[in-house]
Amino acid sequence: MDWKAIETLRLDDERGALVILDQTLLPGTTRTVELRTTDEIWEAIRELRVRGAPAIGVAAAFGVYLAVRGSTARRHEELAAEFGEAKQHLATSRPTAVNLFWALDRMEARLDAEAGRSPDEVKAALRAEAEAIRAEDEAVCRSLGEHGLGLLSRGWGLLTHCNAGSLATARYGTALAPVYLGAERGYGFRVYADETRPLLQGARLTAWELQAAGVDVTLICDGMASFVMGQGKVQAVLVGCDRVAASGDVANKIGTSGLAIVARHHRIPFYVFAPLSSVDLDCPRGADIHVEERPPEEVTERWYARRMAPEGVKVLNPAFDVTEAALVTAIVTENGIARPPYGESLRRLVGR
Amino acid sequence: MDWKAIETLRLDDERGALVILDQTLLPGTTRTVELRTTDEIWEAIRELRVRGAPAIGVAAAFGVYLAVRGSTARRHEELAAEFGEAKQHLATSRPTAVNLFWALDRMEARLDAEAGRSPDEVKAALRAEAEAIRAEDEAVCRSLGEHGLGLLSRGWGLLTHCNAGSLATARYGTALAPVYLGAERGYGFRVYADETRPLLQGARLTAWELQAAGVDVTLICDGMASFVMGQGKVQAVLVGCDRVAASGDVANKIGTSGLAIVARHHRIPFYVFAPLSSVDLDCPRGADIHVEERPPEEVTERWYARRMAPEGVKVLNPAFDVTEAALVTAIVTENGIARPPYGESLRRLVGR
Repeated sequence: MDWKAIETLRLDDERGALVILDQTLLPGTTRTVELRTTDEIWEAIRELRVRGAPAIGVAAAFGVYLAVRGSTARRHEELAAEFGEAKQHLATSRPTAVNLFWALDRMEARLDAEAGRSPDEVKAALRAEAEAIRAEDEAVCRSLGEHGLGLLSRGWGLLTHCNAGSLATARYGTALAPVYLGAERGYGFRVYADETRPLLQGARLTAWELQAAGVDVTLICDGMASFVMGQGKVQAVLVGCDRVAASGDVANKIGTSGLAIVARHHRIPFYVFAPLSSVDLDCPRGADIHVEERPPEEVTERWYARRMAPEGVKVLNPAFDVTEAALVTAIVTENGIARPPYGESLRRLVGR
Repeated sequence: MDWKAIETLRLDDERGALVILDQTLLPGTTRTVELRTTDEIWEAIRELRVRGAPAIGVAAAFGVYLAVRGSTARRHEELAAEFGEAKQHLATSRPTAVNLFWALDRMEARLDAEAGRSPDEVKAALRAEAEAIRAEDEAVCRSLGEHGLGLLSRGWGLLTHCNAGSLATARYGTALAPVYLGAERGYGFRVYADETRPLLQGARLTAWELQAAGVDVTLICDGMASFVMGQGKVQAVLVGCDRVAASGDVANKIGTSGLAIVARHHRIPFYVFAPLSSVDLDCPRGADIHVEERPPEEVTERWYARRMAPEGVKVLNPAFDVTEAALVTAIVTENGIARPPYGESLRRLVGR
């Protein structure tokens, strides 16, 4: 499969469906599913059939559009009430990535802006807004790639955690965007992909899409990062993020904070790739970010042929962790690169 | 199952077999297997049916005894040749843990010391030597427990990696010995067990034996250690080791070095538990330790219901890593606690 042909998610308006590549089946099976109801989209986000902060935002935007697409409401208030119900429900699907709320709020703002129009006109406007969010995400990722590539040199070894690639976005990815651009331009990167327990997004998704793109990728277990760095094989760490606080603290997939500490020890730069839709200036510090706790079965049973821990054992399964700003070398956004102190640089890039 | 009833390995001399608990089947199935030939013992060590540096040493000692037990040799040279062949073969089973070589050398020294005796007398001496190695391992572990417990306080949270428990030794364990002693004495420890990818010794073995002992244990993925430490839940990290170099550099399960870096960042003491049979004063530094590279399938397929990485992806699978001495707070041995500078303190404890 050509990675450029990977379509993480798209609206099929004729069929009244959001079509997503079911990422829980990768890398063995490449199968799309059609999601029509708010419940179906909620479940797909919750179960990580579609995942990655930017892609979740796009999915939610399409979700609230689909929720009103077939509405028989005649008055705006009625349509707005249906929209509001879907928005509220989708907002409970996952708590950490801010893009979800950002996309839902943006859709609501559009709904409000169209208050004087007929229900059909409002629906068309919402579809256009969701499509714009999708298209902008693609453009933002291209821009992250260009800015990020400027931080890297030919022949470098790069280490990444989880999946911040094409599958996490409308296309190109965030942290992997410079890798794809570099591949097109003959940079000859070697990428080390953390497998990323418990849900193995690195093994199942990152290794899969980089391999499809012909990028030199080596899979490692999460605990091997220090070993690989110690051998001088890694010149930079690139990760995505689910939310950046105003302080520059970064919430991302569990394991990111330990990786940042290890990179610092080995004096390797640690770059976070963040569309500005992931930057939450209303959230002062990382400690204020709600970290999702997921079911213990993801650690003890999921993917396994048999249970891999004793029955009844206590399990902790936080989906994310917070990396303190002091460990982050730079935050790459579509408007440029933020450097410490982030309180200032992020605000400037956001334009506030 | 009562953890004290766990018998990692024992000689059944009547049946001419080394009886081991097959650790690849845990935690779901508790099954012993009888190993008779050198090939069978080699395979059991290689495939981690019996694992943990001290237990590997004991298994190898029994292995060379069993190799000559049924010998029809009439002259010592003949018996010694058979012994030598078995010793040479078993020495190739795994390269990193020094206890394997230590135990084999000790058995050979006993063989040489008995050169004047009849083959039957030599066999009896070798059996006694192997049994002594087993019994001493148990006593050493008790001693590690007493010394280690002195470093810990009531109510502490402890984090451990891989399995350095009863299953890694003849009994009690190395890093887990103080946990068991503390449990007997009402210390009320809470233990966080890294699952330890790729072979999941933490999830399958540590969680299992601590649960059997009634210890409060919580399973986490390897990448969650920094998260748990950041929440103030961990007051000390306890790990075993496969080899300690004269410098104090420590080879242990892959992931240990990253864990030590993360513990240092969080200002949490990092204690290594090492029987003196794991201390290799002939090995100057960690860089001189041969780190075993294991098959990629352990990362991509083993344990899983289906393959979890794309076909043909490159995989790195080092079984161990080296933690620099500067990150180790103390090394606990049966003769006492070594503190930096280790070059001096280790030599004193070894008595050289």
